[in-house]
Amino acid sequence: MKAKSRVLPIPAAQKKSVTLLGATGTIGQNTLKIIAAHPGRFEIAALTAGDNVELLAQQARQFLPKKAVIANPSLYGELKELLKGTSVEAAAGDDAVLEAASMPSDIVMSAIVGAAGLKPTLAAIRSGATVALANKECLVCAGALMTKEIKKYGATLIPVDSEHNAIFQLVPPLTSPPQAGGKEGGWEHVESVTITASGGPFREYTLEQMRTVTPQQAVKHPNWNMGAKISVDSATLMNKGLELIEAFYLFPLKPEQLNVLIHPQSIVHALVQMIDGSVLAQMSLPDMCTPIAHALAWPERIEAPVKKLNLGDIGNLQFETPDTARFPALSIAREALIRGGNAPTVLNAANEIAVHRFLKSEIGFLDIVKIIERTLENMDNVRLETIDDVLACDKAARRIAEES
Amino acid sequence: MKAKSRVLPIPAAQKKSVTLLGATGTIGQNTLKIIAAHPGRFEIAALTAGDNVELLAQQARQFLPKKAVIANPSLYGELKELLKGTSVEAAAGDDAVLEAASMPSDIVMSAIVGAAGLKPTLAAIRSGATVALANKECLVCAGALMTKEIKKYGATLIPVDSEHNAIFQLVPPLTSPPQAGGKEGGWEHVESVTITASGGPFREYTLEQMRTVTPQQAVKHPNWNMGAKISVDSATLMNKGLELIEAFYLFPLKPEQLNVLIHPQSIVHALVQMIDGSVLAQMSLPDMCTPIAHALAWPERIEAPVKKLNLGDIGNLQFETPDTARFPALSIAREALIRGGNAPTVLNAANEIAVHRFLKSEIGFLDIVKIIERTLENMDNVRLETIDDVLACDKAARRIAEES
Repeated sequence: MKAKSRVLPIPAAQKKSVTLLGATGTIGQNTLKIIAAHPGRFEIAALTAGDNVELLAQQARQFLPKKAVIANPSLYGELKELLKGTSVEAAAGDDAVLEAASMPSDIVMSAIVGAAGLKPTLAAIRSGATVALANKECLVCAGALMTKEIKKYGATLIPVDSEHNAIFQLVPPLTSPPQAGGKEGGWEHVESVTITASGGPFREYTLEQMRTVTPQQAVKHPNWNMGAKISVDSATLMNKGLELIEAFYLFPLKPEQLNVLIHPQSIVHALVQMIDGSVLAQMSLPDMCTPIAHALAWPERIEAPVKKLNLGDIGNLQFETPDTARFPALSIAREALIRGGNAPTVLNAANEIAVHRFLKSEIGFLDIVKIIERTLENMDNVRLETIDDVLACDKAARRIAEES
Repeated sequence: MKAKSRVLPIPAAQKKSVTLLGATGTIGQNTLKIIAAHPGRFEIAALTAGDNVELLAQQARQFLPKKAVIANPSLYGELKELLKGTSVEAAAGDDAVLEAASMPSDIVMSAIVGAAGLKPTLAAIRSGATVALANKECLVCAGALMTKEIKKYGATLIPVDSEHNAIFQLVPPLTSPPQAGGKEGGWEHVESVTITASGGPFREYTLEQMRTVTPQQAVKHPNWNMGAKISVDSATLMNKGLELIEAFYLFPLKPEQLNVLIHPQSIVHALVQMIDGSVLAQMSLPDMCTPIAHALAWPERIEAPVKKLNLGDIGNLQFETPDTARFPALSIAREALIRGGNAPTVLNAANEIAVHRFLKSEIGFLDIVKIIERTLENMDNVRLETIDDVLACDKAARRIAEES
């Protein structure tokens, strides 16, 4: 981790305050489910949502945060009305979300989806908080920028994505300064890290078969219940390409130390190869409640409302080396990572557009990667110094990808 | 771990002194192979051996310990002669082994096989050393006694056995006092621990088929190259029964938190189920150099001369819940553990005799467990207060098992 170490874990007896950015999405709802299961351990400082004012108000009535913020300013009146008679302060608009993100709290869960999560997460980082990061764009599109700010403000980043959370569990940052002993098995002992991929619905397809697959075939993910866009990313393996980029910014690793392994059961989430031949792995049944509970409780652990893994029942774990000839998204993402600058941002934007065009049946499945390649070729590689640079690059790349 | 925590890891720049008890056995030789691969990191304080005076002298000439000790006193003259012209002091006899075990050194590798390892290991523990434990009898036959002494003298025990070393890697003891932060995921977050078993050559046999198996069939172990006695233990699954007992004394777990899972490939050595649904696992190709290197370097890690695991090449990991009807050794060992007192000592002694009788074709394969049961029934359950109590109990149990 590139984050400053915390000297003391929160004693279990003391309540941990949580700011939840993106309370009404899947990660947000699961976060509240876990918090509800541990009364007395957490208190909510603030909840924010984009448009879902009814659910936000309902959550605020249940958890009684200091503040509830709806990003869409036109919903301010409705939120205020729904919270009448409670102690919860209602607020609205993007600036109010940033203010909530900067409120003093022990942990900020950053679960806003997409580019909208960039500025609030940066605000949380700049307040020096411990940030549980569920937003992908922060590291894929603005990894260098975020990393710099994390160092500068002494923030701690705990990844919530199952693969990165797994790596964090296996090689966590020091919770005490290294000179006081620290813990065993730091990053200097890590040879390489492997994240797993289900392989998606076309794992065994030839390129020829992939040429004619339909959006309906692509969105059938074997293990996780996900949205259409992420399902297509899982079918192209671009989801793993993006996760390689995230891992690069989260952990002190070189691109060549990052690997992907196909593992259709999605039980093993990540593996860490140590220099002594030991491989440490984290497993669980596919349920986001485990990494969320881990991130909320770290450096402690708490019970999560999940079904427990029993390998005797499962019987079999399969692994295969990914075939980059059939899944070129992996190589393209790795190249973008090595190229650096705006390349990962362009890759992500072009992929979003290409996937949407595939979902609208405008292009074929194999064209997704071609559009990304053409967009990368058509944009100069420049450094992105601010979030506004990132957003401008994202916009430009989307326009090119639409026309490619 | 029931051991006192160390506040400071050894800085890599400073040489770590190693006392190696049992230098000429497999573990001893592998230990020296690893030490030879890291010149400048280790220095040998003492080497001891039982009877293999030629190899001991050769090792002493290569590694130049302060002292080389041969347990067999009749070989003193020969050792002295072989070490002429070196700085190495020659010594012989059981007391000289105990003296070597008590010498000040950073780590004592306890690799003497069998009951002969009990007193030297206890001597090392009483010197407050960090003890890398490869001897099984210390914990199986004298677990309660050893644990008491470890606490009393502030020693640290690092298990070398691949399963227990795996658990130690996944939930290591604190290297800094808990009040200074410690590390994440301590034992309070552990729900259960599972060690794996290859299942041995009769994994798929019915009881009827097992009735007539020969010693030759029993000693063919699929993954590890082991001696005849241990191979039979692997065929009955008594090796895992004994390891459950070891795990109980090594880690703060109740018997019902300890599980065994059949895993024919012997790649995953142990799994730790956390309360949040995470399962942490340690894997490696079956090579004792990995746990030895881990134990020698802990809390650091060093390169080990081993082939690295590639799950993409292996393709498949199988797991099955063990069938205690076909492998009753597991239940008997668990009962002995719960019964406590001298029961684990009796179990171990009776098993050794029964296995030897099977290897001499005196009894059938299924009689091994029956003899152990009868021996347990025929001995009173008493507490063992000293190593001499342990040795006397071991002797008495062997006599009964011979006649059962």
